[in-house]
Amino acid sequence: MPSPDGGRVAARLEELWEIARGTDGGASRLAYSKEEAQAVRLAAGWAREAGLEPALDPHGNLWAAPTGVAGPLVSSGSHLDTVPDGGRFDGALGVVLALEAAEVLPGRAALLVCAAEEAPRFGAGTIGSRLATGALDDDALVELVDADGMSAREGRGRFLAELADLPRIDSLPFAQLALHVEVHVEQRRELHRHGARLGVVERVAVPHRHEIVVEGRAGHAGEVPMQARADALAAAAELVLALEQAALAAGAPTVATAGTLRVEPGAVSVIPGRAVLGLEVRGTDAAAIARVEAALAAAGDAVAARRGVRIERRLLRGGEPAVLDAGLVQAALAAAERRAARAVRTYSGAGHDAQHLASRVPVALLFVPLAGGESHTPEEHATPEDVELAAAVLVDLLATSRVKQPD
Amino acid sequence: MPSPDGGRVAARLEELWEIARGTDGGASRLAYSKEEAQAVRLAAGWAREAGLEPALDPHGNLWAAPTGVAGPLVSSGSHLDTVPDGGRFDGALGVVLALEAAEVLPGRAALLVCAAEEAPRFGAGTIGSRLATGALDDDALVELVDADGMSAREGRGRFLAELADLPRIDSLPFAQLALHVEVHVEQRRELHRHGARLGVVERVAVPHRHEIVVEGRAGHAGEVPMQARADALAAAAELVLALEQAALAAGAPTVATAGTLRVEPGAVSVIPGRAVLGLEVRGTDAAAIARVEAALAAAGDAVAARRGVRIERRLLRGGEPAVLDAGLVQAALAAAERRAARAVRTYSGAGHDAQHLASRVPVALLFVPLAGGESHTPEEHATPEDVELAAAVLVDLLATSRVKQPD
Repeated sequence: MPSPDGGRVAARLEELWEIARGTDGGASRLAYSKEEAQAVRLAAGWAREAGLEPALDPHGNLWAAPTGVAGPLVSSGSHLDTVPDGGRFDGALGVVLALEAAEVLPGRAALLVCAAEEAPRFGAGTIGSRLATGALDDDALVELVDADGMSAREGRGRFLAELADLPRIDSLPFAQLALHVEVHVEQRRELHRHGARLGVVERVAVPHRHEIVVEGRAGHAGEVPMQARADALAAAAELVLALEQAALAAGAPTVATAGTLRVEPGAVSVIPGRAVLGLEVRGTDAAAIARVEAALAAAGDAVAARRGVRIERRLLRGGEPAVLDAGLVQAALAAAERRAARAVRTYSGAGHDAQHLASRVPVALLFVPLAGGESHTPEEHATPEDVELAAAVLVDLLATSRVKQPD
Repeated sequence: MPSPDGGRVAARLEELWEIARGTDGGASRLAYSKEEAQAVRLAAGWAREAGLEPALDPHGNLWAAPTGVAGPLVSSGSHLDTVPDGGRFDGALGVVLALEAAEVLPGRAALLVCAAEEAPRFGAGTIGSRLATGALDDDALVELVDADGMSAREGRGRFLAELADLPRIDSLPFAQLALHVEVHVEQRRELHRHGARLGVVERVAVPHRHEIVVEGRAGHAGEVPMQARADALAAAAELVLALEQAALAAGAPTVATAGTLRVEPGAVSVIPGRAVLGLEVRGTDAAAIARVEAALAAAGDAVAARRGVRIERRLLRGGEPAVLDAGLVQAALAAAERRAARAVRTYSGAGHDAQHLASRVPVALLFVPLAGGESHTPEEHATPEDVELAAAVLVDLLATSRVKQPD
């Protein structure tokens, strides 16, 4: 059996990196952009070199299967879009390793590149995999709008037009697929700290997104006594701190973040009459998430009663934490052990295509240690040795795992 | 001695009100706008009817003195611009009553209408009176920019061009002026509650404006554990609440308000890395203001140390509370008493032209009770009886006060 080619992996990461650079020097291939399309075209060419037949599904996901194979397949891959000024590895690594696996396992291993995985452009991520698995409704694309006012639907249309020369398929062939593996660089930098060279993801956290609107009473900052105020910002400040306390009480890996806060009217001489808070509660334990949300609701009731403000909380996005295939977790740990490399069970706090594909096919998600820089920055780094280990475990999983009967 | 004409006062308030209406139906004559210029033209015409000679100073302040009087004068007036969708009385009342006083006291009482008193357009108020008294540097106008990007200097230029037909003076003749009285509708609605029909202002609160920048550490909302965060918004939330506590502890009339808060990068899935807070501490007691500011500084130090964030506080505007002329306060209270009307000593939390003019001439500031609606809204109301009382006290002050020797 041939081995994955580390030199080719590095060269292809470099070629993808060179497509477009942001103002800080990082990779800038935003979701459904011309630059993402360029990367997909590159990957489609590499897929052909590996004996695969590339085609796009209606959402821009690239599927490339061994030519002329009708029976069960295994697949691997990740995404090729990036955050603005992102790194060399996030997404791209999983794609180039999938191509290596296809070389090593001809006639068996396919490539799946999911489109529009990163959230910054449209405010929502994993668009391609969620559309393909039915987790996201096509109509919702109209509401996802970028900074220039372009909807994700329009963006997808332009992306597909950009790649009009590629063959098309009506949908991803999940029924033909026995399992899928995504390799991704870790985003929490803990593997090397724990002496591990590979992370095997058991669960992917779900983010519950909420919007809280606090309606107070605007007024002249000089003329309304403190006791007569219904200050929307002061009320929102209490909620920010209550949320933080609740997440600390819930304990790791549950986290909560208030990431946006808009104050109206927003003048230094006017008491805030309205505050709109955007927050999320995230974790791998649904009960812990519910405890944080209950604490937040209780804090809201108390603050509303004490301050005479109205507080409305709206769940924008809910759901359950994703539990990945336990058999594949075992198999991955065993594959690393065979190579005398320490691998550990872990979880993902960030969302990945893998967790959505897991609703249709057994899925494994492997993390390569972050060896330098931070995730989502140009400095993001992984060592060739760790990449090589991940490639080997990937090939093992794809080669040796039981192949389920197609539906 | 003729009396002020209540019917004419009401008719002139109505005529000013009709110049321009905002989306909520209120008066909309923003600082240095075409609409403020229209109001000034009306007032200049009324001044001529009252035997006064109108002229504009270089800042757009309207000065109208009795023709041919070289000796000491007294003056009265307020402003003619409004907040967006403002009321009938704020500013306008003081101007039309000054015209009545000029009719009653021919050859003695002048009119002074200060330009650009309201802050919403340029983010800073009492522009005309501060320029005229040297409290605001002309160069600062370049930094005061409206929502369309026009500077206050450019706005003033257009305002003066709009009124190019009016005569000009080089500066307001403070040296010729023995005293100035401003009548204004109250903005805190407390006079009627205290059984009073007139408020005589002893002190005007000063707002100390601060900007606080909190530098934390941005990060992935799903991948950074709670204990490892340096969340700039959570830190800012603590400061908002500490400021509120400090103002409550200082007691009335000291108040503090966090009116603006900007969160960066401002995405629900990203831990806030930076928060910029705009706040003010306001009061008539400099020591109480200093106590609130010291408490805020202490809270900032504690929060910075505990959370590992950097907190920088910058005083954007300071100063001392204004103390108005004690003799004029006494005279105003006595004038009300002579009419068997209850008047009370009070303070102003809001800024007024009067406090700036007080640096050049003895000044009185009289408050007419707010009888309905809120200040700065279309519903703002004052009763004809209270307006009549204020007019009478105004005339008494202008007629009977000692006239100082010109400088």
